[in-house]
Amino acid sequence: MLKRKEDIGLSPYELKFRGLHRSGDIRMTLFEIDFEKVNESTIRSVEELLPYKNSETLIWLNIDGLHDEKLMGELVGTLQIPADILSDVMEPGTRPQMEEFDNGLFVSIKMMELNEGKNRVSVDNLSLVVMDNLLVTFQEEKSDLFNPVRERIRKHSKRFRTLGADYLAFALLDVVIDNYIFILGGLGEKIENLENEMIMDPGRETLKIINLLKRELSNLGRYIRPAREMIIGLVKSESDFIAPVNEKHYKELQDNINQAVELLDYYRELLYDELNIYHSSMSTRLSDIMALLTIFSVIFIPLTFIVGVYGMNFDNIPELHWRYGYFIVWGVMLLIAIGMLWYFKKRKWF
Amino acid sequence: MLKRKEDIGLSPYELKFRGLHRSGDIRMTLFEIDFEKVNESTIRSVEELLPYKNSETLIWLNIDGLHDEKLMGELVGTLQIPADILSDVMEPGTRPQMEEFDNGLFVSIKMMELNEGKNRVSVDNLSLVVMDNLLVTFQEEKSDLFNPVRERIRKHSKRFRTLGADYLAFALLDVVIDNYIFILGGLGEKIENLENEMIMDPGRETLKIINLLKRELSNLGRYIRPAREMIIGLVKSESDFIAPVNEKHYKELQDNINQAVELLDYYRELLYDELNIYHSSMSTRLSDIMALLTIFSVIFIPLTFIVGVYGMNFDNIPELHWRYGYFIVWGVMLLIAIGMLWYFKKRKWF
Amino acid sequence: MLKRKEDIGLSPYELKFRGLHRSGDIRMTLFEIDFEKVNESTIRSVEELLPYKNSETLIWLNIDGLHDEKLMGELVGTLQIPADILSDVMEPGTRPQMEEFDNGLFVSIKMMELNEGKNRVSVDNLSLVVMDNLLVTFQEEKSDLFNPVRERIRKHSKRFRTLGADYLAFALLDVVIDNYIFILGGLGEKIENLENEMIMDPGRETLKIINLLKRELSNLGRYIRPAREMIIGLVKSESDFIAPVNEKHYKELQDNINQAVELLDYYRELLYDELNIYHSSMSTRLSDIMALLTIFSVIFIPLTFIVGVYGMNFDNIPELHWRYGYFIVWGVMLLIAIGMLWYFKKRKWF
Amino acid sequence: MLKRKEDIGLSPYELKFRGLHRSGDIRMTLFEIDFEKVNESTIRSVEELLPYKNSETLIWLNIDGLHDEKLMGELVGTLQIPADILSDVMEPGTRPQMEEFDNGLFVSIKMMELNEGKNRVSVDNLSLVVMDNLLVTFQEEKSDLFNPVRERIRKHSKRFRTLGADYLAFALLDVVIDNYIFILGGLGEKIENLENEMIMDPGRETLKIINLLKRELSNLGRYIRPAREMIIGLVKSESDFIAPVNEKHYKELQDNINQAVELLDYYRELLYDELNIYHSSMSTRLSDIMALLTIFSVIFIPLTFIVGVYGMNFDNIPELHWRYGYFIVWGVMLLIAIGMLWYFKKRKWF
Amino acid sequence: MLKRKEDIGLSPYELKFRGLHRSGDIRMTLFEIDFEKVNESTIRSVEELLPYKNSETLIWLNIDGLHDEKLMGELVGTLQIPADILSDVMEPGTRPQMEEFDNGLFVSIKMMELNEGKNRVSVDNLSLVVMDNLLVTFQEEKSDLFNPVRERIRKHSKRFRTLGADYLAFALLDVVIDNYIFILGGLGEKIENLENEMIMDPGRETLKIINLLKRELSNLGRYIRPAREMIIGLVKSESDFIAPVNEKHYKELQDNINQAVELLDYYRELLYDELNIYHSSMSTRLSDIMALLTIFSVIFIPLTFIVGVYGMNFDNIPELHWRYGYFIVWGVMLLIAIGMLWYFKKRKWF
Repeated sequence: MLKRKEDIGLSPYELKFRGLHRSGDIRMTLFEIDFEKVNESTIRSVEELLPYKNSETLIWLNIDGLHDEKLMGELVGTLQIPADILSDVMEPGTRPQMEEFDNGLFVSIKMMELNEGKNRVSVDNLSLVVMDNLLVTFQEEKSDLFNPVRERIRKHSKRFRTLGADYLAFALLDVVIDNYIFILGGLGEKIENLENEMIMDPGRETLKIINLLKRELSNLGRYIRPAREMIIGLVKSESDFIAPVNEKHYKELQDNINQAVELLDYYRELLYDELNIYHSSMSTRLSDIMALLTIFSVIFIPLTFIVGVYGMNFDNIPELHWRYGYFIVWGVMLLIAIGMLWYFKKRKWF
Repeated sequence: MLKRKEDIGLSPYELKFRGLHRSGDIRMTLFEIDFEKVNESTIRSVEELLPYKNSETLIWLNIDGLHDEKLMGELVGTLQIPADILSDVMEPGTRPQMEEFDNGLFVSIKMMELNEGKNRVSVDNLSLVVMDNLLVTFQEEKSDLFNPVRERIRKHSKRFRTLGADYLAFALLDVVIDNYIFILGGLGEKIENLENEMIMDPGRETLKIINLLKRELSNLGRYIRPAREMIIGLVKSESDFIAPVNEKHYKELQDNINQAVELLDYYRELLYDELNIYHSSMSTRLSDIMALLTIFSVIFIPLTFIVGVYGMNFDNIPELHWRYGYFIVWGVMLLIAIGMLWYFKKRKWF
Repeated sequence: MLKRKEDIGLSPYELKFRGLHRSGDIRMTLFEIDFEKVNESTIRSVEELLPYKNSETLIWLNIDGLHDEKLMGELVGTLQIPADILSDVMEPGTRPQMEEFDNGLFVSIKMMELNEGKNRVSVDNLSLVVMDNLLVTFQEEKSDLFNPVRERIRKHSKRFRTLGADYLAFALLDVVIDNYIFILGGLGEKIENLENEMIMDPGRETLKIINLLKRELSNLGRYIRPAREMIIGLVKSESDFIAPVNEKHYKELQDNINQAVELLDYYRELLYDELNIYHSSMSTRLSDIMALLTIFSVIFIPLTFIVGVYGMNFDNIPELHWRYGYFIVWGVMLLIAIGMLWYFKKRKWF
Repeated sequence: MLKRKEDIGLSPYELKFRGLHRSGDIRMTLFEIDFEKVNESTIRSVEELLPYKNSETLIWLNIDGLHDEKLMGELVGTLQIPADILSDVMEPGTRPQMEEFDNGLFVSIKMMELNEGKNRVSVDNLSLVVMDNLLVTFQEEKSDLFNPVRERIRKHSKRFRTLGADYLAFALLDVVIDNYIFILGGLGEKIENLENEMIMDPGRETLKIINLLKRELSNLGRYIRPAREMIIGLVKSESDFIAPVNEKHYKELQDNINQAVELLDYYRELLYDELNIYHSSMSTRLSDIMALLTIFSVIFIPLTFIVGVYGMNFDNIPELHWRYGYFIVWGVMLLIAIGMLWYFKKRKWF
Repeated sequence: MLKRKEDIGLSPYELKFRGLHRSGDIRMTLFEIDFEKVNESTIRSVEELLPYKNSETLIWLNIDGLHDEKLMGELVGTLQIPADILSDVMEPGTRPQMEEFDNGLFVSIKMMELNEGKNRVSVDNLSLVVMDNLLVTFQEEKSDLFNPVRERIRKHSKRFRTLGADYLAFALLDVVIDNYIFILGGLGEKIENLENEMIMDPGRETLKIINLLKRELSNLGRYIRPAREMIIGLVKSESDFIAPVNEKHYKELQDNINQAVELLDYYRELLYDELNIYHSSMSTRLSDIMALLTIFSVIFIPLTFIVGVYGMNFDNIPELHWRYGYFIVWGVMLLIAIGMLWYFKKRKWF
């Protein structure tokens, strides 16, 4: 799954899709953003892009589906995106990364979306190619995550047109990272609720839930930590394709992703503490069980021995013939039991 | 709570309150600090600020309450604080951060206050905007934390007027960080007392208290650690809005916040050690219980077997008819018991 | 094995083989790569190399077998590879390293290959000497790992001829690192499957498997972590022997090896979690066993005591002569048993 | 204790003593060091310092006691030590720090002294102000720690006069750090002895001792680690007040404090290992106890059942009337016991 | 042992021996290395060195024994080695360090030697002073470790004469570090063998051996880790006393010491895993013991109760007089036992 044997030794210039989901049509949507108005359209072939090249407007081309190797080849020709960049786009298992090339900047990041119905997180790779007045984004599956940005473009087309493709890229990355925090927040709420529940009554189910949450958290960490590394690299690179006016936004991205990583670490610590509480309560339970067993055993073992003694069939056991022998034995046994209980009380065993 | 779904994808320029507490009036207090005298007043609208603009005095404007989006918009116009800075001010869940802008410096930090009556710590976000001869501070709730600084302004107005808005900002941040250490100190005292108590008698309550203190400590850490990062960034930035004469004060802030983080780590280590002591004492207790059970069982089990043997009803058991059979059996049993006790003594089981 | 006593204090210029496998012939294969065509041949002596020196084509010389000290000496003379470099080549236990010398660049890395039949990983040392239009590679054993690269050379000889020996070296290193990820992926699948299995039924075998996988993983880590260090050093060195056009490829190598290290850490964490789950399930099992023992003991111990009492042979035990004595005792015993069961139910012991 | 409520919000220029021990006189001793001779005297007021100002000799003024706020104010006037520096001097709870000011260098460090009689470590704050030909040192309590330096001054006044106030400061700091290592060494010896003791016989006291040593060690770490940070900062600062000829001495300080930190880490590891050994031996003990209990129980439980069977009072139990029934039962019971023992032997339970 | 009380506060220029072993003669051996020939001699006084000063040959002076303070003083005069350097040489407990001085470079490192007869590692301090055409080495005890280097000097005197004193120093350091790896390798083999042994049969001795190996490993780490720090500092210093032609050798030293540290970490991880395996196997053993005890107890406890019931002496127990009462009871008891066994089988307890 991580790396198929047949993909080892591929040329970095080869446009071959390395993911799993080959089905579905490729869908290309186009935003043409000008100071006053926004044109939205769906295109079917790369040739339709030609009129937009070198236009004065800001163009955002979003491509859903990565497996059309012929289309990718045409993008190399039409938009001058280098083949080795597109080769990376076609590897959905890639690590978050950034790379500057002659006429643009390539950024890739993992996008997470909470499917609220199914209560599970779907992960997709988002690739962004930032060029002069042109942003191309690639995803494997269509997603609604960027609808608020689309809305903002429609309302504030002038700001986007002024601040350029790098601001638009920031807006998308910002949504991606805000979603990290949103998903983490949901997970964190479950973790915090669990803690309150545990103080009440740590049942056997608790351990399974803790392990599940731990797994989920470390899964999120796999995507969030490398994303942080990438964002920090992006801010440090001082790329020419990020205008000075937009640098502060990228710094804010860095603050946000740092917050996400801090949350990860905080929740991980919480879970670790909960695990400890669980184990402590389990070992306290074992200790309680043993204490009860011991109290019972230690009290009754000598008594049982005594009644055994007088159950023996020797011809000559003088006590058996005493008038109050039976009652004396009862008295002795009561004394022993009371002595034991007093001892356990003193040692605080119950 | 961390991030509401509807706040994902907001423009960084949008002045929208992202916190929870929308109630309460906005309260604006103004300090006009001159070499010789200090004027204190409460203002109701942003327009009242106009006469103070570009005055020769040092102005400190404190705003309690962040949810008035219209007021914030007027601040952009009147004081030329950029909209994206105020947008951050209106996000109380933000991470401690610093950002320089064209005509000022923006700093945000978490403020902690111990409500001694209720014995719990309240957390508020403090935002500071440092400009030429002007300091604007924002909090969600009114707080008495800065009263000592207000007192010092009244007494030493000349020093504040001379050293400027950056010195005033330092004085406030200094109070915030001193409070971190004060609160940590209180928590630390509880932790250290617990240790002494534990050596006496580690009861079952101890574990709950340890877990509670651990939780509280890691909660403080969530605010203090990022604050350190921010302070270090502030010192490293060598911002133009921090005069060289005040740099040493900011370095002292860094020393103080470092001390807070070291305390965090030291107390965490103490708690961890206490947890270990608790677990050791619990497992020693279990081990003691088992030893007692074993001593009793191992002594009485063979004795009970012996008395069982002579309780059997076989027609032909010669020993039963011996004259001193009963007493011989008692002798054998005593020998066995003494032998066992000697063995346990030798193995140091009691 | 790591260091033989007789190899301590060897001169760094001494061409002495320091490995174990001295057997087998040395095999030298040669690729002569030109824009239009590729010549492949096997040579037997170093002298056959002379015509290729200073030719305009790109030469790849691959040498399988490192123990021919005479041959190595001739390489010093013929190809001007410094003796101290070749001395490192002849030490198969060396750490991944890179070193620039006057007329070239020396790189060594561990190569891992999964022998699918035997289901085990074989490790070999790969040394690369990158010079102008010449790449010399050394391995101890012949391997099929580079066949895809050979195929690519045959198909795209022009690209290789244009991008030079450093691109060819990158292609080989890329295959090595892709293999790391491939092998890690296989191991990771086993680890993830184990987790699912464990939730069902953590048998006794599980612990052995976890320990085995842990060992395997930490063994991979021994080779992958230093390789990362080496690759990072290579990228940072900005060596003259890596053309600017190929630098981005080396950066991609760095991304790939970083991904490998992240996988290592992720799987290690998974294994650690699995170990915890195993131990928890074991201690739950112990706790369950003890609870059952205790329930049985605590119920029957007093009952057995009671029946013992009425098995005593005292002359005067009034209850024995009651008409319904036997049935009353049964009643009392049932009450005790039910009371106990109710108590255990309340404490949730079963 | 760490921070008093009334000290929050103090001005960094306010000369207020923030420690606890206000009692005792202030004691000022003066060394006037010239090439040929050394004058030692005790002074009572700051005015007595005036004749020494700007003298050609090297002056070392040592002040024991920090609570005289008036005196401190006079030092500001007489020696031009800035008020904010002296304000730090008057805070004995401060972190080790260094700060350059216009005409000098301020260094503060924790001084530890082993009171051999009481076998406990006392901690005091040492502040050093290094100026041209003048060193002022502040301590809360008088200490004998620096007597060897005083001796060296008397013997080698020329070297001190030549190398200046920074060399004198180094000599004092060197003593402080040598004392760290000396105290650590004493603690370390206890830790190492404990290990040997444990292998013999890990008694119940051991755990208490380990926890005590751990506490002591982490207490030392609280002072030593920040001191290292300060020393490293001092070396890196390349302050003008440290002459190039003395830089190597400060580098040696850094080596020494690094050694102290390494010792801390090494002893901490030893203690951690000892704790593990203790727990292992405890759990082995529990396991041994349980094994014995089980062996006894498992052997006697079936035997006791058998003798119970033949203690039943059924009218019709044929075996009871066999001639050798009793002896046959003994034989069966012996066989069972031997079988059990053989099984346990095979499983290596004893 | 680490620091004697009387050594605190010593001047860094004082030539006082701070070690323990004062006995034995000082032994000075001299190698005079020229292009064509090597002269070896033993000298008795420092004056014999004078003819070699400023000679054109390369001189290696090796001094075994550090306690002759007079001799050290003469070295200051004759060879211009600064007193503070020699003061460090006379402190055998010093940390590995390097220091450049006016006319040379001082390096000190711990030398480890495996005494194969006694199977223990002896540690000595090696100090090297590298000057123009002169290398002075100091050890406390005579050692055979450098014999291979002596051999190489005799064979390749030209190379040593050409590459100079820094190459000779490298050759010695290389031997020291190769010995680290050799000793680690031996320890590592023991650790790896232990692992195989453990899978077979983790006896009680295993824990002691693991703790012993752990102690040994962390002891090696105490010397190897600071040595790495020193070597890295040496490579970074770009000292004038290391000729550019020899820099690559020093980089190789760094690679070797890094390999040693990686081995340390790898073996430490192995030992940690082994400790876990041991504890797991111990807790599995305890769990097995408990399971057996429980199975036996739970089966026989109710049976023993039943036979007790019919051992009671009530006048009126109807079942006792049934014809097949005894056999019915046996039947019931068999059913109970089989039911229990089936239940345990189902829960996989045996």
